[in-house]
Amino acid sequence: MTIREFQTTIEGIYLAKDQARGIPANLAWLMEEIGELARALRKGSLAEAEGEFADALAWLCTIASLAGVDLEAVAAHKYAHGCPKCGSSPCACDA
Amino acid sequence: MTIREFQTTIEGIYLAKDQARGIPANLAWLMEEIGELARALRKGSLAEAEGEFADALAWLCTIASLAGVDLEAVAAHKYAHGCPKCGSSPCACDA
Repeated sequence: MTIREFQTTIEGIYLAKDQARGIPANLAWLMEEIGELARALRKGSLAEAEGEFADALAWLCTIASLAGVDLEAVAAHKYAHGCPKCGSSPCACDA
Repeated sequence: MTIREFQTTIEGIYLAKDQARGIPANLAWLMEEIGELARALRKGSLAEAEGEFADALAWLCTIASLAGVDLEAVAAHKYAHGCPKCGSSPCACDA
């Protein structure tokens, strides 16, 4: 599944509700999901952490959609050619 | 680009450094990126927000890799068949 396909999938499920909520409220929900992810990684099961990773990605996609951002395009633009700072893969910053 | 390809790309650039840092420190860095994303969405340019979206996704991928989680697999498992709670797309929860 491409990043774009996942973003489109999330738009299909949630965009109407997420648009009504607006970006600041969706950022709050993303923070809640990141908190749940941190808790699952600290003391939860692998299955719980897996679900929280999925949720965090879903909320990141939603906020990108509300901001008019193609998450796949910006991710590939910044990282497809190695570290954005040193241009190497593996990163050679401070090496 | 698939979610898995992006996760693998980030592993190639950063995994050695990120493994040395460990999950808690990488969670702190993810939080920092989410904060930068929130700031860019509130008062930055679109280009700044695009870069922060890419960074947030990169850190989420890194933490997934450290936790042994395939982000594409868990995202598709949870969301490819509609809302995980009501099973519909668009979501019909509380409708």
